[in-house]
Amino acid sequence: MDDSIPPADARDAGEHPADIADRLQSMPAPDAAVALRDLPREAAARTLAEMDRDAAAAAAGTLPAVDAAALLTDMPHDEAADIAARLAPDLRTQVLAHFGTSDAARVADLMRYPGDSAGGIMQDRFIALPADATLGNCQERLRQWSEEDLPSASYLYVVDADRRLLGVVPIRDLVFRKPDRLVREVMNPTVRSVTVDDDRETVARLFAQYHYLALPVLDREKRLAGIVEARQVIGIVQDEATEDMQLMVGLSGEERTFTPWRRSLVPRLSWLLVNLATTFLAAAVVGLFEETIAKWTVLAVFLPVVAGQGGNAGLQTLTVIIRGMALGELQGRAAWSALGKETVLGLLNGLAIGLVVGLAGWWWKGSFILGAVVAVAMLFNMLAAAVSGVVIPAALRMAKIDPALASSIFLTTVTDVAGFFFFLGLAALVMRFL
Amino acid sequence: MDDSIPPADARDAGEHPADIADRLQSMPAPDAAVALRDLPREAAARTLAEMDRDAAAAAAGTLPAVDAAALLTDMPHDEAADIAARLAPDLRTQVLAHFGTSDAARVADLMRYPGDSAGGIMQDRFIALPADATLGNCQERLRQWSEEDLPSASYLYVVDADRRLLGVVPIRDLVFRKPDRLVREVMNPTVRSVTVDDDRETVARLFAQYHYLALPVLDREKRLAGIVEARQVIGIVQDEATEDMQLMVGLSGEERTFTPWRRSLVPRLSWLLVNLATTFLAAAVVGLFEETIAKWTVLAVFLPVVAGQGGNAGLQTLTVIIRGMALGELQGRAAWSALGKETVLGLLNGLAIGLVVGLAGWWWKGSFILGAVVAVAMLFNMLAAAVSGVVIPAALRMAKIDPALASSIFLTTVTDVAGFFFFLGLAALVMRFL
Repeated sequence: MDDSIPPADARDAGEHPADIADRLQSMPAPDAAVALRDLPREAAARTLAEMDRDAAAAAAGTLPAVDAAALLTDMPHDEAADIAARLAPDLRTQVLAHFGTSDAARVADLMRYPGDSAGGIMQDRFIALPADATLGNCQERLRQWSEEDLPSASYLYVVDADRRLLGVVPIRDLVFRKPDRLVREVMNPTVRSVTVDDDRETVARLFAQYHYLALPVLDREKRLAGIVEARQVIGIVQDEATEDMQLMVGLSGEERTFTPWRRSLVPRLSWLLVNLATTFLAAAVVGLFEETIAKWTVLAVFLPVVAGQGGNAGLQTLTVIIRGMALGELQGRAAWSALGKETVLGLLNGLAIGLVVGLAGWWWKGSFILGAVVAVAMLFNMLAAAVSGVVIPAALRMAKIDPALASSIFLTTVTDVAGFFFFLGLAALVMRFL
Repeated sequence: MDDSIPPADARDAGEHPADIADRLQSMPAPDAAVALRDLPREAAARTLAEMDRDAAAAAAGTLPAVDAAALLTDMPHDEAADIAARLAPDLRTQVLAHFGTSDAARVADLMRYPGDSAGGIMQDRFIALPADATLGNCQERLRQWSEEDLPSASYLYVVDADRRLLGVVPIRDLVFRKPDRLVREVMNPTVRSVTVDDDRETVARLFAQYHYLALPVLDREKRLAGIVEARQVIGIVQDEATEDMQLMVGLSGEERTFTPWRRSLVPRLSWLLVNLATTFLAAAVVGLFEETIAKWTVLAVFLPVVAGQGGNAGLQTLTVIIRGMALGELQGRAAWSALGKETVLGLLNGLAIGLVVGLAGWWWKGSFILGAVVAVAMLFNMLAAAVSGVVIPAALRMAKIDPALASSIFLTTVTDVAGFFFFLGLAALVMRFL
């Protein structure tokens, strides 16, 4: 994570590395690599660090190992690790060979953590203080640091001899408090932390709930291993929301508008084929009642009404539930009260919509029976939509699958199949008695 | 925005005000008000500030004006303004009468800005420095401040006599740089700022792109009026994403799983009724071809396949486009290249899915003609889905409406109507020549 003040060269060039990165990541990798080589080294390193990780690794992968290493050694360890982890194994080995021993070890250490864990997103630049120093001592000592080693941190972390976290001191305390006070006296000892294995979504939720400026990350031995800053979490929250929206409709979760169509085609087509199988299921239900439709063709006219309303009402429920899960609102008993709420809404919406559809059917086609059949089918389908809008993501979550995954496809299967079955089945039943 | 370190009383009680707020905001307002009165005043103020704004105003609205004022005067001006703005006008006047003159003026000032603008989200607690002081002077002077007046800021802002922004100094510079240096020498003069009227989504996008710790907000006279911190933006990014997901399917944008069903019913039902009107449009298209279906009932079986596939493929496109717009990826020419990409994908997916559906139709019902008709209709509908997935949100945005608003409802209307029209029209045409 870079500081928010652009370095001198980028300022001179008038373009922020993040903006150069936007252009480079929509180019083919070899072109992006050429563009990187044309930049001053520091700007190139910052640009590479700002690029989408896959695009960055692809671009770095087309550079000679020595050039790639020059860029990676110039960026924070966590960003170098993210990119190095995506390089081909032999190139990665060559690149890491150009790092100093301690840097190489730290990068390798960070590479062990999956990208969606706290360990995978933490920075390893932070300031650790001993508890028995005075604030004045600390300030003196920190003034010796070279500027480029200084983290942008909001907190100073107080640790014991084993690097175990004892407390935090807001950096402003070094400025605002009397220099003769002991770190131990001013530190806050009840500091919240996460561990390297925590999910990054959990980390994001803590930031959203408690407005932390930064959170310390502990390794498996409970030693301070890194920190996550609020400004890093903004991108994570955006990515997680994008992922949920995309998974719901059968997208990869990582597609962007600038993703080339060649890379979008297969993931999209795969889910469309799954969707196709599910629509055939709905078609088979209609097929069961072909004879009924042959005798009473107007039923076909109402098929899209029954299916469309059920699908839309179900999508409303599904969206509230999946978002509620992502925001951590649906723990324990809250899930049951959500099911209750959605069932009530399904019932009331079903009664209202059923009434309108029934009257419309009666008036349009002059058949009271048709109106009654479509009204009752509508009510049942809205209930099915409400219940499955809660049950589908809950079941996916229980199965340890992302609750958003293809959930809208599963949902419309339920609403199509149930809707057609209620509607045509009821019509067949009624016809037998007429 | 409160500091991340819980105050002593909350620490003793073992519960963070944000967690108390979660419980209180799902209670009826009078119960929440009683619970607030049972808390120590500082904890109550912090809890109220953490609550959902509408719930906070409802709870504060049931308190006597003097008690409500006690809580509001105990919180930062921006949070007090957000809640005060939602109180009934006469209660608001009574509450503001309890504020000191300068505080009342600042709260009233902040209330003028809409909640979705930079002015509506900024804090007015920041540290402004003169350019000609030394860092040591500044540090001395800041040590005189009482602790509760100190903002948690990461930057110090350098202003001239007219409060015009000259530059920023990272707060760590007070710690790490030599005390005899002038503010003017160490400040970064190329500081990015936003104005009070900028959209909060624009602000969030700047944070996401450039990883700022904080951004200064200027008033209409270009004077420094407040700051926005990265940790505030996390909640905004979450809310904006939730809003987009919800608007797409015809939800209010503000519904949460804990929203009582009474408040969810009307917004949901309204869009379901709009959706009903659009499904009647699709039904009318089927109605046009009732005779065709009467002669060839198996057509009815394929209706859900044509509509379902088109709807799902269109939702994929729509989701990518709406998210791309929210993330600022779709400016200028990028919109055209997105249309190109989606059209290519629509064509290729349409060919693939059309082929599979065609073969399935041929094999299942033993009719090559049926297979051919459904295959061609599928291809056309996938193209219509792709184009409308781009055009619908683009048109909404051009009309200055949120591009997400009910877009999935409009989209499925297009895919249903176009799909049925292509499919049944083609079938009618073919039948005439057979």
